[in-house]
Amino acid sequence: MHIHIINGPNLNLLGLREPEIYGTETFEDFLSKLKSQFSEIQLTYFQSNVEGEIINNLQENGFNCDGIILNAGGYTHTSVAIGDCVAAIKTPVIEVHISNIYARENFRHQSYIAPYAAGSIVGLGLNGYTLAITHFIQ
Amino acid sequence: MHIHIINGPNLNLLGLREPEIYGTETFEDFLSKLKSQFSEIQLTYFQSNVEGEIINNLQENGFNCDGIILNAGGYTHTSVAIGDCVAAIKTPVIEVHISNIYARENFRHQSYIAPYAAGSIVGLGLNGYTLAITHFIQ
Amino acid sequence: MHIHIINGPNLNLLGLREPEIYGTETFEDFLSKLKSQFSEIQLTYFQSNVEGEIINNLQENGFNCDGIILNAGGYTHTSVAIGDCVAAIKTPVIEVHISNIYARENFRHQSYIAPYAAGSIVGLGLNGYTLAITHFIQ
Amino acid sequence: MHIHIINGPNLNLLGLREPEIYGTETFEDFLSKLKSQFSEIQLTYFQSNVEGEIINNLQENGFNCDGIILNAGGYTHTSVAIGDCVAAIKTPVIEVHISNIYARENFRHQSYIAPYAAGSIVGLGLNGYTLAITHFIQ
Amino acid sequence: MHIHIINGPNLNLLGLREPEIYGTETFEDFLSKLKSQFSEIQLTYFQSNVEGEIINNLQENGFNCDGIILNAGGYTHTSVAIGDCVAAIKTPVIEVHISNIYARENFRHQSYIAPYAAGSIVGLGLNGYTLAITHFIQ
Amino acid sequence: MHIHIINGPNLNLLGLREPEIYGTETFEDFLSKLKSQFSEIQLTYFQSNVEGEIINNLQENGFNCDGIILNAGGYTHTSVAIGDCVAAIKTPVIEVHISNIYARENFRHQSYIAPYAAGSIVGLGLNGYTLAITHFIQ
Amino acid sequence: MHIHIINGPNLNLLGLREPEIYGTETFEDFLSKLKSQFSEIQLTYFQSNVEGEIINNLQENGFNCDGIILNAGGYTHTSVAIGDCVAAIKTPVIEVHISNIYARENFRHQSYIAPYAAGSIVGLGLNGYTLAITHFIQ
Amino acid sequence: MHIHIINGPNLNLLGLREPEIYGTETFEDFLSKLKSQFSEIQLTYFQSNVEGEIINNLQENGFNCDGIILNAGGYTHTSVAIGDCVAAIKTPVIEVHISNIYARENFRHQSYIAPYAAGSIVGLGLNGYTLAITHFIQ
Amino acid sequence: MHIHIINGPNLNLLGLREPEIYGTETFEDFLSKLKSQFSEIQLTYFQSNVEGEIINNLQENGFNCDGIILNAGGYTHTSVAIGDCVAAIKTPVIEVHISNIYARENFRHQSYIAPYAAGSIVGLGLNGYTLAITHFIQ
Amino acid sequence: MHIHIINGPNLNLLGLREPEIYGTETFEDFLSKLKSQFSEIQLTYFQSNVEGEIINNLQENGFNCDGIILNAGGYTHTSVAIGDCVAAIKTPVIEVHISNIYARENFRHQSYIAPYAAGSIVGLGLNGYTLAITHFIQ
Amino acid sequence: MHIHIINGPNLNLLGLREPEIYGTETFEDFLSKLKSQFSEIQLTYFQSNVEGEIINNLQENGFNCDGIILNAGGYTHTSVAIGDCVAAIKTPVIEVHISNIYARENFRHQSYIAPYAAGSIVGLGLNGYTLAITHFIQ
Amino acid sequence: MHIHIINGPNLNLLGLREPEIYGTETFEDFLSKLKSQFSEIQLTYFQSNVEGEIINNLQENGFNCDGIILNAGGYTHTSVAIGDCVAAIKTPVIEVHISNIYARENFRHQSYIAPYAAGSIVGLGLNGYTLAITHFIQ
Repeated sequence: MHIHIINGPNLNLLGLREPEIYGTETFEDFLSKLKSQFSEIQLTYFQSNVEGEIINNLQENGFNCDGIILNAGGYTHTSVAIGDCVAAIKTPVIEVHISNIYARENFRHQSYIAPYAAGSIVGLGLNGYTLAITHFIQ
Repeated sequence: MHIHIINGPNLNLLGLREPEIYGTETFEDFLSKLKSQFSEIQLTYFQSNVEGEIINNLQENGFNCDGIILNAGGYTHTSVAIGDCVAAIKTPVIEVHISNIYARENFRHQSYIAPYAAGSIVGLGLNGYTLAITHFIQ
Repeated sequence: MHIHIINGPNLNLLGLREPEIYGTETFEDFLSKLKSQFSEIQLTYFQSNVEGEIINNLQENGFNCDGIILNAGGYTHTSVAIGDCVAAIKTPVIEVHISNIYARENFRHQSYIAPYAAGSIVGLGLNGYTLAITHFIQ
Repeated sequence: MHIHIINGPNLNLLGLREPEIYGTETFEDFLSKLKSQFSEIQLTYFQSNVEGEIINNLQENGFNCDGIILNAGGYTHTSVAIGDCVAAIKTPVIEVHISNIYARENFRHQSYIAPYAAGSIVGLGLNGYTLAITHFIQ
Repeated sequence: MHIHIINGPNLNLLGLREPEIYGTETFEDFLSKLKSQFSEIQLTYFQSNVEGEIINNLQENGFNCDGIILNAGGYTHTSVAIGDCVAAIKTPVIEVHISNIYARENFRHQSYIAPYAAGSIVGLGLNGYTLAITHFIQ
Repeated sequence: MHIHIINGPNLNLLGLREPEIYGTETFEDFLSKLKSQFSEIQLTYFQSNVEGEIINNLQENGFNCDGIILNAGGYTHTSVAIGDCVAAIKTPVIEVHISNIYARENFRHQSYIAPYAAGSIVGLGLNGYTLAITHFIQ
Repeated sequence: MHIHIINGPNLNLLGLREPEIYGTETFEDFLSKLKSQFSEIQLTYFQSNVEGEIINNLQENGFNCDGIILNAGGYTHTSVAIGDCVAAIKTPVIEVHISNIYARENFRHQSYIAPYAAGSIVGLGLNGYTLAITHFIQ
Repeated sequence: MHIHIINGPNLNLLGLREPEIYGTETFEDFLSKLKSQFSEIQLTYFQSNVEGEIINNLQENGFNCDGIILNAGGYTHTSVAIGDCVAAIKTPVIEVHISNIYARENFRHQSYIAPYAAGSIVGLGLNGYTLAITHFIQ
Repeated sequence: MHIHIINGPNLNLLGLREPEIYGTETFEDFLSKLKSQFSEIQLTYFQSNVEGEIINNLQENGFNCDGIILNAGGYTHTSVAIGDCVAAIKTPVIEVHISNIYARENFRHQSYIAPYAAGSIVGLGLNGYTLAITHFIQ
Repeated sequence: MHIHIINGPNLNLLGLREPEIYGTETFEDFLSKLKSQFSEIQLTYFQSNVEGEIINNLQENGFNCDGIILNAGGYTHTSVAIGDCVAAIKTPVIEVHISNIYARENFRHQSYIAPYAAGSIVGLGLNGYTLAITHFIQ
Repeated sequence: MHIHIINGPNLNLLGLREPEIYGTETFEDFLSKLKSQFSEIQLTYFQSNVEGEIINNLQENGFNCDGIILNAGGYTHTSVAIGDCVAAIKTPVIEVHISNIYARENFRHQSYIAPYAAGSIVGLGLNGYTLAITHFIQ
Repeated sequence: MHIHIINGPNLNLLGLREPEIYGTETFEDFLSKLKSQFSEIQLTYFQSNVEGEIINNLQENGFNCDGIILNAGGYTHTSVAIGDCVAAIKTPVIEVHISNIYARENFRHQSYIAPYAAGSIVGLGLNGYTLAITHFIQ
């Protein structure tokens, strides 16, 4: 079983950026733990700040792996193109957000990705990724 | 550890109502399985079609149990009063929706509860409840 | 043949409340006449000011009687949950409003129930109930 | 007693046009049945695709017949001028729509005619005309 | 002289809930003081989290007591049905809010009750109830 | 000098229709007086309830007469096509409304014609036509 | 007969300001001509850039003169207070705008004064004042 | 103790203006009574139709008196500048409106002052001022 | 093969009206060239300024010819009835606009016809008709 | 003559992605046919999922080739930057969409590119590209 | 060279009012420093809380000095009249705001002045005035 | 001291693109002058048409240089992701726009970057960059 994680813009700053919202752990630290915890599956990871590279990566993985976890960061609220890509590929996608986007600015309450995703996990911190993997395994 | 599940209006029809959206299992069947799966914790359940009874039940459980899972059904999109109650109690609340509300009518895209909840799990079927319990345990 | 009438909030004040809009006859008086007029069918009646009790009553009658006539009063314009219930049950529902809601405030022009109902009869006074029964019989 | 029916644009295609929404009976067929059913009253009929001819016809009949049944079709949602005419004439008007306009596109949920009509019957098929006549007779 | 106070959802948590907004006194404590202060009048009290029970109670008191003080809490912003009831009864109603709802979220700036109430007292803490009684006595 | 007056839908009912808003004089009566008062100019008149006939008439007169006075009635608020025609012709057009459209429903506050007209005279009764002729003469 | 003209902000710049929109004549020049033309009536004039002084002046003249012509300039679109004053005084007010405000920015299409005025004359240049006087005389 | 009352535009017409909404008593009459009733406190009063003079007066009194009662009339709904001033001064401000602004036009439902005021008393007539003084004294 | 062209309001002014937007060729001139260019097909043409006559013509041609090219002019943005007719007929319709409606006023950006048309060609001048015929032939 | 085609995000999936909307032919297959059909002109092609690379490519080709055909996919509805680029370059641009975007979600009805393009061809499948080339050649 | 600074409502409280947003220096202190720093130019200053006096002052200086720096405070967001004045005068105006208005309430994001100003400097504290002078000198 | 300038999409066309709005100087020419003028500081420059590369560059410079000047061009109005990045980095950012975006289309009036920037300089041409450097130096 192959599960692929895609993180969007500024998520490479995790641990650095606004730790009162996002915590102090880097995503790489967290990924190591995830791989230990789910050693029976193949877990791959991609991060980019470029909207189109996220689309490229979704297309590359979206016809062969078993599940994609997508945190598109700020593109969540503005990218019709990523939403279209999620609709176009075959692999089911779970949308994850670390912080509770519904407790923040109004423009973060709309997602162009959510309607085409299998589902969303929001506000449960990095554990959202763990729960999404758990869901794909089940 | 005590986790409490609250289901709102029409969720007592699960298994009967629009099975192409919500599946054919009743919530009672599912709850039995959940209790077996998480036998080490206390798992309680309440369902009501009455907005105010959901508030009453949130108040009764919201100062003593360790986690509340709330699927407020149609009240999610219209109830300031339930949202206020979630903000007023001490126990963290995870909002769960069985179907992907973002793939349905516009009025289902707004939640008065989400800003005050710890987080939301949407569109992952009954497994959303399981993931929420998993999150509270962790 | 069994037809069930459900009246929502403040309709128990009929005859008392704003007679220039709603007339001076009580609904009970009117119901007696209806029963005489349609003596060949079973005609039952429920009124509640509680949104959730209207849902309870819709669920109880919505899988066995032949037609439901629903005047949800003020809940018409705010209740996603009653709308969901009308969609979930099997019995067809006709929405009735005594006054012409389109000649009143803007917020009365929207109905969360109408999209899921078989149809609506608006502004024709208590005769709207009579016409709805006539329709079900035909 | 004289009751006049006016049908607006595209209703002359009834039986031809989108039968899954509007059924296969032509309005002329239906009118014959109506005339038999209500042989005690004078029943007249006018159809036009031209907004202004509907106004002309409303003005011609609106000061001498006892009831007008108006299905203005697509003009319902765009015609201030027909709405003004309904307000200007003396004869009471009942608005009828064959399909449930509230279950269709948003722009069909607004009626410029409804606020000035005596009432509306929506979604009950051709039977809506029958019920409207029944109401006028009562 | 008989004045009746009705409190809506979550106001039974007063003293417990968000004391930085609502203070630490319970409403029962406050009510005792009010009764001492206004010993010459009959002062009755009702609290419910259920929208429809607030309507029931308004109907029971709205044709015989001299003044009603209504703090409908979260239902203020969503309940057409309570607003209809305030319009339907005979007793004048003063709307009271403990906190300054205009300094909070946008959805708290709209009241379905205010247009039908005699007036509103907002943001003056529990003293708002005292001022409302003073007004009714004058 | 040739000035042409065009009246739109329902203005043929003037004197009959809602006299509390529009007065009791018919437009023909008024026109006779106007012709006496301005006997030095050629004054012609056209009325139609049909949007497209108003366009036809604007086109016929809009390249040869010296001034057009247009009261498009209900089409004022809905007709892009009449507005386009006013922009396309050479003769300047003054928009006249008998009643104060800004004191009536919101949908009457928007005019698709005003941006392309030379100017507007609103709310001054039939005298608005007189003033418009006076303006063209000056 | 006493007619009073009030001009609002920046109208003292007439002749100086944006002559392509407002022409090159000063209002004082124009006023002299008006006084000659209507020598049989008393014609007074006030201009101020201060919203409150316009209100003061409306109050001073609004209970004793026979007609007020008000061009409130930019305050037209923002001043509830001037609109309230027009509603409060006894003298009828005609709103005049020199340019066609409907052919300019959207925010100039709304007037807080128009609903309370007797009528409006828009886009006919300085002649709008002349026509308004003519109307009052008639 | 020093309490200062500020009235905004058109409130100097009280007793004259629209008595069916505002009553027939002048504010000066009422003020005399207030001073008798609250003879133990210093009660001062200012009225202006000029927005900026209201700001000047707020600044003059807003750092030394104990309470300000502000009825900004029409400026309530349009003045960011008065709202800013209420936020900038030290003395708490209670907003008072004589009529029920929520039962009137939509544009009167928004207040730029309310979010920065201590609270609001609306619709209770001139008694609103009395209640506000009572509140400051308590 | 039979292709039918329908032009809406004011398109009969082509060559006369606003030549900086629409060019100086009349449609009849252009049609002659089109007929020469596509001599192998039957090419018919209809123009009307009357909304309902466009509907009549669409109905007459919409069940027997092979393609309809519709430029509904100003009715494009306001006519639900024409949109309904395009949906009701069998012949595919291509919507053509000579000018780039997206570079003009906002109200020209919405089309009630486009959702029901096979496609749209916008802004390519009279060549849009040529391309539409080319498409039907292919 | 040199015509350049630019396709935006997800159009590289053509033939793979949602064939019920976009057909089963790949764009490369189609391009070969186009090149055969228009062998007399130079036809070049660029596809990218990256918004900024589309801008780069527009800038490279936008000052030297004779026509650009742009299908910006999902960026059509969100990219001010691509719209700015189309406005900045010298070569005329025709916007093409394969599917009828007006028959899909609301957010697809707005284009930031259309106001700056020469024109648009929408909903005519891959033939839209052919027609655009035909137009440039003419 | 003559540069004139105009400050609007509440800016006379600078140093007193909300120092966490606006700092503790008074504008007079700052002005002294500015005059020393730019001793080669004539620097004049005006402050008023009255909208109309700001217009008066703009008119007095707007045809003879070389640059105007305008911080209209709360009137920025509500004054069409000041915006009109900036458009009417000849001297270029730079809009300055001390705080970052885009990081504050939504109603502060709109400026009626900015479209007519030469430019804006926002959020750079009192240094914004210095930079504006620097710009005029250059 | 190190100040970094970032220019977004289409700003590489400066001097080429729409010179009536943006002037004829290229940014590279201007940068040379800037470096001479501010020879005491380190001045670096980056331009990209790719949204994500702007984010990459902001991250690279945003934790070590002393000030960033950002003109994000068209991304200003659409990029939540760049706004998030400005909020996430430590270096203060000044937003610069060469043209007066408030005098252009509505969609250019909103900036996703401004709320997180230290301040904005708009409409002062290339001098905006000079002023921003001056500010950072002070």
